[in-house]
Amino acid sequence: MKGYFTNSPDAPAPLTCTVERKVRFEEVDPMNIVWHGRYPGYFEDGRVTLGDMYGIGYLDLFRYGVAAPIKKMQIDYIKPLHFGETFSIETLLHWTEAARMNFEFIIRNSTGEKTTTGCTVQLFIKDDELMMFQPDFFAELCEKWKAGALPSADPQ
Amino acid sequence: MKGYFTNSPDAPAPLTCTVERKVRFEEVDPMNIVWHGRYPGYFEDGRVTLGDMYGIGYLDLFRYGVAAPIKKMQIDYIKPLHFGETFSIETLLHWTEAARMNFEFIIRNSTGEKTTTGCTVQLFIKDDELMMFQPDFFAELCEKWKAGALPSADPQ
Amino acid sequence: MKGYFTNSPDAPAPLTCTVERKVRFEEVDPMNIVWHGRYPGYFEDGRVTLGDMYGIGYLDLFRYGVAAPIKKMQIDYIKPLHFGETFSIETLLHWTEAARMNFEFIIRNSTGEKTTTGCTVQLFIKDDELMMFQPDFFAELCEKWKAGALPSADPQ
Amino acid sequence: MKGYFTNSPDAPAPLTCTVERKVRFEEVDPMNIVWHGRYPGYFEDGRVTLGDMYGIGYLDLFRYGVAAPIKKMQIDYIKPLHFGETFSIETLLHWTEAARMNFEFIIRNSTGEKTTTGCTVQLFIKDDELMMFQPDFFAELCEKWKAGALPSADPQ
Repeated sequence: MKGYFTNSPDAPAPLTCTVERKVRFEEVDPMNIVWHGRYPGYFEDGRVTLGDMYGIGYLDLFRYGVAAPIKKMQIDYIKPLHFGETFSIETLLHWTEAARMNFEFIIRNSTGEKTTTGCTVQLFIKDDELMMFQPDFFAELCEKWKAGALPSADPQ
Repeated sequence: MKGYFTNSPDAPAPLTCTVERKVRFEEVDPMNIVWHGRYPGYFEDGRVTLGDMYGIGYLDLFRYGVAAPIKKMQIDYIKPLHFGETFSIETLLHWTEAARMNFEFIIRNSTGEKTTTGCTVQLFIKDDELMMFQPDFFAELCEKWKAGALPSADPQ
Repeated sequence: MKGYFTNSPDAPAPLTCTVERKVRFEEVDPMNIVWHGRYPGYFEDGRVTLGDMYGIGYLDLFRYGVAAPIKKMQIDYIKPLHFGETFSIETLLHWTEAARMNFEFIIRNSTGEKTTTGCTVQLFIKDDELMMFQPDFFAELCEKWKAGALPSADPQ
Repeated sequence: MKGYFTNSPDAPAPLTCTVERKVRFEEVDPMNIVWHGRYPGYFEDGRVTLGDMYGIGYLDLFRYGVAAPIKKMQIDYIKPLHFGETFSIETLLHWTEAARMNFEFIIRNSTGEKTTTGCTVQLFIKDDELMMFQPDFFAELCEKWKAGALPSADPQ
């Protein structure tokens, strides 16, 4: 499977983080596997963590008066997860100069196998208008990102 | 089991409505029954319908600048519900002169058996203050209710 | 936007159904719109209804000892939905001779605008093995479908 | 408020554990607080953790062929929780010689204030019959519990 996003060769490496989670009882369906509709929430767990690390989380956006609605989501299901299983959500924010956030997600079970991958694309909205250019706070992040001036350490 | 609320003998009959629902796949747990934590949502389906019938729904409250947070909830589980099963939610708003809404819920399966009962108690908040008296719109409803001037027909 | 699936010119028309729903309070997020992660459940509401109409629902599959896990899902968000809003879910099962079910979904608000579209792809599994050919019950449906011998009426 | 359960004076102290959680975006409602219907899931996070600590979790029950359905739940809402807030779930399994599990829950925000309390009561079912006496694995736990032979350390 090729990547969800095409990065130009001179793009800086994605910003990444990995969070650990455990499957909760209410997330499991009668087939004894995580219901396919829970994965948007898992992706969001990753996106929220990365957003908080880099000052582009929901509360940051709210403070800047900017909304970043999800425009598109894709999920590829490879293997199921079961009740009580520990898994990790690797989140990658891919470089782009457009006014959007391109997130990729890789979920792995406790033996390291990829069980689910996916992506979300978010646009920026201010005063009910779609923004054609990156909002300032995001443009500033991108500048540091390109300059290699961002911390890359994982949380936890 | 006695009732969740004690009504004085001269209280007018509860306001009621009944909505029909079908168990959705995502509501069922690995035991093949509706997960116990879905019932607050079923109760809310009933409360929202009754609220809309009598002008005391979420959007009405919002318009009046009043919030009505849930203070207490109790659920008694009698029989399970299964995927695809049709059930009804009978909702009763019990009379009270206090600044609160006392709701009772009776869920029945398609053969009419009670499967779950419960109640919620809501208080009223305005400008971040707990209201000691009923907000006007609710007091007006109560006046008509006591006078027997409210429609009692079920929706649908 | 072109379609999610490419149909050969001589493929029979998709099987379709449309269900009506109302946004529930618990489906709405702090932005006052339906949380993007609720749409897999809306799609499932449509898929379950169509499955029941044509004998290929969850309980039918269970009876045949076949599982049909979701392999892939895509969602495109066009406009938001709000609390209490009525919307419709049009579900289309596209023709294919492969051992899979290709579903497309079109959600429209009460004024008929498309608010969300998407698709799911399901494969068939029997005895823990991916099926290379359609299971009998599905092949039989396809035969009637191709022969134009299926009812096309919408439910409700 | 008095306790949810009345313990006899010579009962051993409750078994307890405390888990830390963070409010997820999908748990928050349009009032910007955790939707009241998410708390059964928070309680379950606590119950699952304690169950795993003492060998009476869902998977243990499954292994013993015993189900422990929730018979009753009560929730008291004191203060709201908000998006991103860290909170703790203290779970207490109260002593009883009856064939049931009496759990109490105390949720506290990051400043240590109680925000929500509640309880669940579970019964035991084997071969579709309500058990009148404690299943063996639970009776054995109770014996050690009464003898003071159980670890009391918190996980994490």
